[in-house]
Amino acid sequence: MTYSVAVAGASGYAGGEVLRLLSAHPNFTVTTVTAHSNAGQRLGDVQPHLRSLADLVLQPTTAEVLDGHDVVFFALPHGASGALSEQLGASTLAIDCGADHRLTSKTDWDEFYGGDFAEPWVYGVPELLTVSGKQRDNLVGATRIAAPGCNASTVALSLAPGIAADVIEAFDIVTVLAVGPSGAGKSAKVHLLGSELMGSANPYAVGGTHRHIPEIKQALRGAGAGDDITVSFTPVLVPMSRGILATSTARLQPGMTEADVRSAWELAYASEPFVHVLPAGQFPRSADTLGANTCLIGLAVDEDAGRVVVVAALDNLVKGTAGAAIQSANIALGLPETTGLSTDGVAP
Amino acid sequence: MTYSVAVAGASGYAGGEVLRLLSAHPNFTVTTVTAHSNAGQRLGDVQPHLRSLADLVLQPTTAEVLDGHDVVFFALPHGASGALSEQLGASTLAIDCGADHRLTSKTDWDEFYGGDFAEPWVYGVPELLTVSGKQRDNLVGATRIAAPGCNASTVALSLAPGIAADVIEAFDIVTVLAVGPSGAGKSAKVHLLGSELMGSANPYAVGGTHRHIPEIKQALRGAGAGDDITVSFTPVLVPMSRGILATSTARLQPGMTEADVRSAWELAYASEPFVHVLPAGQFPRSADTLGANTCLIGLAVDEDAGRVVVVAALDNLVKGTAGAAIQSANIALGLPETTGLSTDGVAP
Amino acid sequence: MTYSVAVAGASGYAGGEVLRLLSAHPNFTVTTVTAHSNAGQRLGDVQPHLRSLADLVLQPTTAEVLDGHDVVFFALPHGASGALSEQLGASTLAIDCGADHRLTSKTDWDEFYGGDFAEPWVYGVPELLTVSGKQRDNLVGATRIAAPGCNASTVALSLAPGIAADVIEAFDIVTVLAVGPSGAGKSAKVHLLGSELMGSANPYAVGGTHRHIPEIKQALRGAGAGDDITVSFTPVLVPMSRGILATSTARLQPGMTEADVRSAWELAYASEPFVHVLPAGQFPRSADTLGANTCLIGLAVDEDAGRVVVVAALDNLVKGTAGAAIQSANIALGLPETTGLSTDGVAP
Amino acid sequence: MTYSVAVAGASGYAGGEVLRLLSAHPNFTVTTVTAHSNAGQRLGDVQPHLRSLADLVLQPTTAEVLDGHDVVFFALPHGASGALSEQLGASTLAIDCGADHRLTSKTDWDEFYGGDFAEPWVYGVPELLTVSGKQRDNLVGATRIAAPGCNASTVALSLAPGIAADVIEAFDIVTVLAVGPSGAGKSAKVHLLGSELMGSANPYAVGGTHRHIPEIKQALRGAGAGDDITVSFTPVLVPMSRGILATSTARLQPGMTEADVRSAWELAYASEPFVHVLPAGQFPRSADTLGANTCLIGLAVDEDAGRVVVVAALDNLVKGTAGAAIQSANIALGLPETTGLSTDGVAP
Repeated sequence: MTYSVAVAGASGYAGGEVLRLLSAHPNFTVTTVTAHSNAGQRLGDVQPHLRSLADLVLQPTTAEVLDGHDVVFFALPHGASGALSEQLGASTLAIDCGADHRLTSKTDWDEFYGGDFAEPWVYGVPELLTVSGKQRDNLVGATRIAAPGCNASTVALSLAPGIAADVIEAFDIVTVLAVGPSGAGKSAKVHLLGSELMGSANPYAVGGTHRHIPEIKQALRGAGAGDDITVSFTPVLVPMSRGILATSTARLQPGMTEADVRSAWELAYASEPFVHVLPAGQFPRSADTLGANTCLIGLAVDEDAGRVVVVAALDNLVKGTAGAAIQSANIALGLPETTGLSTDGVAP
Repeated sequence: MTYSVAVAGASGYAGGEVLRLLSAHPNFTVTTVTAHSNAGQRLGDVQPHLRSLADLVLQPTTAEVLDGHDVVFFALPHGASGALSEQLGASTLAIDCGADHRLTSKTDWDEFYGGDFAEPWVYGVPELLTVSGKQRDNLVGATRIAAPGCNASTVALSLAPGIAADVIEAFDIVTVLAVGPSGAGKSAKVHLLGSELMGSANPYAVGGTHRHIPEIKQALRGAGAGDDITVSFTPVLVPMSRGILATSTARLQPGMTEADVRSAWELAYASEPFVHVLPAGQFPRSADTLGANTCLIGLAVDEDAGRVVVVAALDNLVKGTAGAAIQSANIALGLPETTGLSTDGVAP
Repeated sequence: MTYSVAVAGASGYAGGEVLRLLSAHPNFTVTTVTAHSNAGQRLGDVQPHLRSLADLVLQPTTAEVLDGHDVVFFALPHGASGALSEQLGASTLAIDCGADHRLTSKTDWDEFYGGDFAEPWVYGVPELLTVSGKQRDNLVGATRIAAPGCNASTVALSLAPGIAADVIEAFDIVTVLAVGPSGAGKSAKVHLLGSELMGSANPYAVGGTHRHIPEIKQALRGAGAGDDITVSFTPVLVPMSRGILATSTARLQPGMTEADVRSAWELAYASEPFVHVLPAGQFPRSADTLGANTCLIGLAVDEDAGRVVVVAALDNLVKGTAGAAIQSANIALGLPETTGLSTDGVAP
Repeated sequence: MTYSVAVAGASGYAGGEVLRLLSAHPNFTVTTVTAHSNAGQRLGDVQPHLRSLADLVLQPTTAEVLDGHDVVFFALPHGASGALSEQLGASTLAIDCGADHRLTSKTDWDEFYGGDFAEPWVYGVPELLTVSGKQRDNLVGATRIAAPGCNASTVALSLAPGIAADVIEAFDIVTVLAVGPSGAGKSAKVHLLGSELMGSANPYAVGGTHRHIPEIKQALRGAGAGDDITVSFTPVLVPMSRGILATSTARLQPGMTEADVRSAWELAYASEPFVHVLPAGQFPRSADTLGANTCLIGLAVDEDAGRVVVVAALDNLVKGTAGAAIQSANIALGLPETTGLSTDGVAP
């Protein structure tokens, strides 16, 4: 079976990655690509790396243009997908790579984003533990899916197994992420210039202000964290276009051993095609996941510090965004979950 | 049809890339991987990005281990494949990613490499123009194939159309390449340390000493260049793991116009799946080819300087090495040429 | 003796580098800094690396603000310094880091820049050979100085010795440069984003369109090149904030030997504090000049190709711009030429 | 007054940086440089960026060669400086950039390093708070100084003010560092190759095993931390040659406010020439300290997480090693503390 697909926001980084993956997917045919200021241009002029789709012409992002496809991917600035998606048929599968439909709490939305609060859609992280199983179960047959925030899903996947198994505390989590700037999008801003980023490590949103914090807490609450959950979260831009390496630490629950820790994570992800727990003593490098839909996790117990250290790597544009979107679409449509997605990174 | 495959030298960069591509290829099954000092280890410990093959165990690189496969890829230091390949059955398809079987002239070999001269194998650049057609024709049914040098094939693909069409002179070619260090392999050398390379552009083999020079001349002679061909060739290591951007210039033949130039290149590559000539005014970026088997070419005529400028980009480990090897294997075995190979780069 | 100094355009990359060097200079006191959109801010908020000047407040860039200083450095977009400098006292030393006053030919200006043609000022490359000596001689006592284009001065310093000594031909010069993006300034443009530049080599201004071409020709004509001079010039952005590595090749004059070549360059720069010819077999790396006012030159003769290959490295913001400006100011004011300038790069 | 200086280990990264700074220092004259395998070579061949010292010849690293200088800097692998320094005259100022003389506890040494335990020397971080003042006081007149570990001093300077003022808890500190690989030295190792590092974030020594952990604890105990101090410490190699960006968090003491926090740090470093607390809302970038002896500190209080977040940036080879060594030498010898050291980074 082949589904017709439209991608809204095809000129940006997330939209481009959705297209790269769709082009290699046997069950999807990209028939429509839309953009804002680039409408009218060939895709090949705007995304020169997408050779297989170079002759598609970008159309304006309107409900008329998007309507009538089996699947629509939104890769737009936040605030834009709500009104557009309401005009799509109910049976159309709509997947939002933006933030609009991720948060279930209007209070969180108002505090961290602002503007109109849109209804929450099914959260597109299939491997995420929930108190009743895994998020995958909620994605079967879904027609509205919210792809995750790249930083948020990295941290949620890092810590959910320990929380679900009550091996670590959700209180006083600390996470610091080395991230590439492609997650910040393709808009021209001085602090994202190559001259500012190359040769430097640049923190931002320091002190609890990053928008992915409520998303992390929501995901971990879904895995069993109590209301006392706290997350100190600091992202640091480092000189690589893509990739996230998240170092997350949480307090070890009293009485728990290294074996308990390892067993919680290994059990959680044993049969997962895209989330791999590395052997003891091995830790992931972000480049090992480049271009792949893989999240690699390394574990250590620091007994002196009383903390579990979880290092997780993924490609922010794949497993963090576009790959998660397509994996979720596969599940929603009843396709084999791994269709069109690779586990092997482009390294070195 | 599925072919059993062995990869010799699986712990290095070229070997790793052959494996990444093979793993996604529907007609090849990797049954054997070999290494030297890493023999005995899991592939996952040595090539952590190759998740789909992580549990393969590296065996020693011996003729006994390699024998009995339908296809054997060699990704060894030069000098090593000759003796091993002689012990393989004549019907086994052997593809060497090293330099041993590329040069047809023993004099060239002695001057630039030294050591025993091995017999030349069919050169694995299908799109390369020859005086009688394209190199593709020679690959059909071949059982011994020499994958190209990454720099050499970039320059040869850049200039062959102009030489074959007699639009440019082969005398006084000048080419300067920005290259990533993965082409230099995975051995620990001080000048390849990250600290030495990051934030710097470092030339090497300046002044006509690089080993790919005779390979370029040989390829261009095959496309019609006369004995007066000269190539000034300078590679510059720049801070990216992968990629080649070659800026090659040649003197415009008297009377030739920009239209003649563009037409020579466009005609040569019009139907090629992996070599694309960009529209006038567009020039390739190396990252647009990352992970893909694509060579992108941009053209300009500098009338004031009397030179055609050809800028070509490719991924040294894919179109420059492993992708060329697999594309050539597809042709040799009668498979569709594009099987298992992508045209779309992982960008940004 | 201490001179009062104003820097116009202090919020950009060139202006910032002028300030960094001035702050370490014993004879200059920065009393005024100006900017356009950043006027009113503390310098420390805009140029956080300039700790020693953090409390200076940016003023608007007007003739009133700039007037009354002993020395004024202009680091403005081209077209802006002409009118402002006319309003400065004739005895004020004015140094322009922009392009306005470099070209002596209105025809060149019209073809490559456009807009009003401003009078040429003394060209600020002291070591540049002229038919009557060195450019240094023209700088003594000058009150209007045009700092060079960074790419242009790299190529001019690379080739002038060979042209002046008639060792190489000026006809059919080919030069390809690996350059960091800081030379393109601090304005927010998509093609200068870190995501676009990191992991990639990106050519621009291909085919003879770069604005530094007439400047190179003018400089080399000054060193003795004839009217048949041609320069094929291609810059390639590579992933480093700063630095230029220029690979320039020119045809060896008939009868000339490697010894003739080496002697021409060594003689030209033997007593120069900031331009160093490396021993045979050594070639410079751009990072070796980071932060220093040094230009390093390596030489090879490729007899097979009939070309001399000159590889030159410098820091585009120091020797290529701000350092050249201050070195020229030292000469103009009668200070020791090396005052306040370092030869040692910040490496690795 | 001018002091004669020898640098042992002049071919490495730390030794090279000591030399770069010494060359610009008005009171030091480098008369002797030594190396191991590079002995006999010109310094210019091994450290091509050190133009001002290029003609010095490397001698073997022996007590005979080092003896008789006013000052000796050791930049050797750990374990090497002890025996050599014992043979120096007692009045010679010896400064060790290695780890041998930093730890006061033999137990710590045995656990994290092993081999012979050498006597502790005065710790070379002048700004570090102690229960009786600052470490600077201990450096006056010292003849044996241990320059700090680069990571350790970054974290110690980050947190000591809060601990000394009892604003944060020393229990349950968490710190994650983005670091450049030059701190790991110039030896050829596969995991330090450019191909492995570029485009990637690579953690190492995860889970409490890094050798700088006891050094951090020792420094913070000196500032008043109790025996319950714990430090979860994770370094991540990121693609930049130099620089450290440390994100350190600690629990806010009950009742403390953001004003208390800011005041503790500002008071501690108000008059420090090289440690600067940034205004509220500003956070440092590692490149802003490149080549400078500056440590920049940004502060935030995350009330929701109950943690103070301290982001500190410095150049691992300058303020983290060689600059700290020279600053300490200035103090020991009674020179003005800032002599020969810059506060302004080479950015962008």
